[in-house]
Amino acid sequence: MNTKQFETIKYDVEDHIATITLNRPDQLNAMTVQMMQEMVQALDLIDADDDVRAVIVTGEGRGFCAGADLTQSAGPGDSSNPFEYQIPKNADGSINYSDPSIRDGGGFITLRMYQCNKPIIGAINGAAVGAGGSMIVAMDIRLASEKAKFGYVFARRGIVPESACAWFLPKIVGRAQALEWCMTGRIFGPEEALAGGLIRSIHPADELLSAARSLAREIVDNTAPVSVALTRHMIWRIPTQDHPMAAHKVDSRGVFSRGQSKDSAEGVASFLEKRAPAYPDTVPKNLPDFFPWWEEPDYE
Amino acid sequence: MNTKQFETIKYDVEDHIATITLNRPDQLNAMTVQMMQEMVQALDLIDADDDVRAVIVTGEGRGFCAGADLTQSAGPGDSSNPFEYQIPKNADGSINYSDPSIRDGGGFITLRMYQCNKPIIGAINGAAVGAGGSMIVAMDIRLASEKAKFGYVFARRGIVPESACAWFLPKIVGRAQALEWCMTGRIFGPEEALAGGLIRSIHPADELLSAARSLAREIVDNTAPVSVALTRHMIWRIPTQDHPMAAHKVDSRGVFSRGQSKDSAEGVASFLEKRAPAYPDTVPKNLPDFFPWWEEPDYE
Amino acid sequence: MNTKQFETIKYDVEDHIATITLNRPDQLNAMTVQMMQEMVQALDLIDADDDVRAVIVTGEGRGFCAGADLTQSAGPGDSSNPFEYQIPKNADGSINYSDPSIRDGGGFITLRMYQCNKPIIGAINGAAVGAGGSMIVAMDIRLASEKAKFGYVFARRGIVPESACAWFLPKIVGRAQALEWCMTGRIFGPEEALAGGLIRSIHPADELLSAARSLAREIVDNTAPVSVALTRHMIWRIPTQDHPMAAHKVDSRGVFSRGQSKDSAEGVASFLEKRAPAYPDTVPKNLPDFFPWWEEPDYE
Repeated sequence: MNTKQFETIKYDVEDHIATITLNRPDQLNAMTVQMMQEMVQALDLIDADDDVRAVIVTGEGRGFCAGADLTQSAGPGDSSNPFEYQIPKNADGSINYSDPSIRDGGGFITLRMYQCNKPIIGAINGAAVGAGGSMIVAMDIRLASEKAKFGYVFARRGIVPESACAWFLPKIVGRAQALEWCMTGRIFGPEEALAGGLIRSIHPADELLSAARSLAREIVDNTAPVSVALTRHMIWRIPTQDHPMAAHKVDSRGVFSRGQSKDSAEGVASFLEKRAPAYPDTVPKNLPDFFPWWEEPDYE
Repeated sequence: MNTKQFETIKYDVEDHIATITLNRPDQLNAMTVQMMQEMVQALDLIDADDDVRAVIVTGEGRGFCAGADLTQSAGPGDSSNPFEYQIPKNADGSINYSDPSIRDGGGFITLRMYQCNKPIIGAINGAAVGAGGSMIVAMDIRLASEKAKFGYVFARRGIVPESACAWFLPKIVGRAQALEWCMTGRIFGPEEALAGGLIRSIHPADELLSAARSLAREIVDNTAPVSVALTRHMIWRIPTQDHPMAAHKVDSRGVFSRGQSKDSAEGVASFLEKRAPAYPDTVPKNLPDFFPWWEEPDYE
Repeated sequence: MNTKQFETIKYDVEDHIATITLNRPDQLNAMTVQMMQEMVQALDLIDADDDVRAVIVTGEGRGFCAGADLTQSAGPGDSSNPFEYQIPKNADGSINYSDPSIRDGGGFITLRMYQCNKPIIGAINGAAVGAGGSMIVAMDIRLASEKAKFGYVFARRGIVPESACAWFLPKIVGRAQALEWCMTGRIFGPEEALAGGLIRSIHPADELLSAARSLAREIVDNTAPVSVALTRHMIWRIPTQDHPMAAHKVDSRGVFSRGQSKDSAEGVASFLEKRAPAYPDTVPKNLPDFFPWWEEPDYE
């Protein structure tokens, strides 16, 4: 067991699985600037650590993440600013939207998740509301406790969907469901989340983490880490392209380069010999030289 | 109650909810040029009226909308032309497809809906076929009566999916379901529509409108109109972009500008005080200055 | 009955329906270079043959397609190369990824399916794994036997999703389900496939082909072949575009040109006379002059 000290989250690695536990239970793990920064640091650790092959994100106590911590805002009229940024202004007093400091804090987490090379599983133990609801749709797989609650409540707080959730949420649940949840701002339970495609399964509260770990093990015990990293980025990034040729260009390079790897030899051999595989290649050490095949855009 | 006189539709506003009722019941509300024009005019009224915060579209009598009124066409060989446009020709007699007058009439309605700043709820009371089936997928939320019927029958009439339905329908029901419905041209009932994701719920015929109004009230009673307008455009427009950064750029501007609004102060205060909110800002009056953040394309 | 001689597939045409049967039953129809080439040739025949109006793809014996035939590879370390291509190298010995010969073989089939002008129905009779699982998501409609099995096993073989499946699969089942199946590499049965949206229905093994033929007949008996060809390309190609105007440009041309066709006159007349239609126009003979409205990208 490997434990790094953070203050607002717990970070553990065991059997190749990193678990991030949001850890402000008395505030239902409401998001603060520090928690945002520690989440990004934890994801940096995960990507740099060859030993980590899957990630679970869950919450300590009753909640998963109840959104931005509104008590950190400077009061009514400043709920935009829970993270206490200086609002950049033009000479005439209007907001300078091209100033990078205006960036939404929750987006730092979801954009960092989007770049992650390891699979991310959300184990939603309680309320995932506002920034908590946005965070989970940037993950790859979501399981929930029967005690979970969800809410895309932005329009009930006078703001808009944040954390890049307008891009992520419709990719998980479709345009129609995303519109209904975001335009009503309704709080809903795990059954509605399951029916809408937001989560894959519902579990008794005391079995949620073991179910998440079983799923993580299904990945870790069977699949090659480099293959999983490439697969993750291919499935998130390629479908918005105009033509399947976009996939063919990447997968031709991927099949041929990985097909000559020791991982591929081990994958085929273990399959033919009906035994558990032991893949030699790791992430990030053995990512192929055509990776990344995309360019990350800047904020402007 | 506010009533404006149209001939082929009814238009009422009550308690911030506009209801458009297609009103040619003896023809199952089949679409005519006049109805198309009146729908666009009604949407113009809705967008200009601060008092309107949600829209319901339904049909008078047994049908919702049975498609283009084929009896308005000049007979066999001219079913392309129910709206009696002059087909623009080149000097050699071939069709001049770059002439703007060749535009599909149904598209004027769905493209106008796409630009609407208020949420649109379809209350599908009867047959929604052809242009009627296309119209509903440009709405945000769809409920149906147990007597509703649906059909993407274009290939059974020798034409193609119209009203921009090739773009909208797969976003609501996915590629596979859209292909099956459009390539068979099958007429189907509300159960198949629900299973395929086309509608969110089925209601007894005499409870359909009250269910639609309850859903509209869930929006109107709880959420800020400016937030809903921004949310609507974010969720429809952003997901086709290549990267979640597209959302982050818009939501950073949105969270910070709306976060300083009186709506946000009221949203947070009413939440903390556990009371109904009274948002001061309205649409279109208080749309932020970065709206719209996109450019509408021209027809060419 | 029309039969063309192939070696690894069977090809029959009856009542306007072509059936391609993968035919290496002792190898569970595992893919070889020859089978890939014969599939492309069969699709060329289908597109050139006015008599063919729908396509069914199924497998002979117990399997549908068990993936690339690993026994054709040169052994461990060369599973990348089951099709025995020469790997193109740069002067320094590294792989030359810009050489067109590096292309993934399975992609030749799915990209050819993408260009097809006839609807393609998959009748999944048994294991559809690896390249077999990828092939089916480039089809329009998928039915399965209760004995079918599925697996996106690439990460278990140390490679990546191929056959352009990173583009196709999320369009059929959504990002979340595609990620779970491709990152676990799990083998799953027809119930999980149905719940995930991969197939539309499950059938007793001995009723699968007749169910597929009924669905093909629903298309062939009711709809105009030119309309179906246009519809197929509109629904696959338009939704990745940024704005519904992309659909409006194509459907305006489509409705007006096809609306003046004899197919449209027959479609409307047969509907009003409540009789079966007999459309005169065929594919490829009567495709409109604005078809194709897109440019196919090159591999680079």
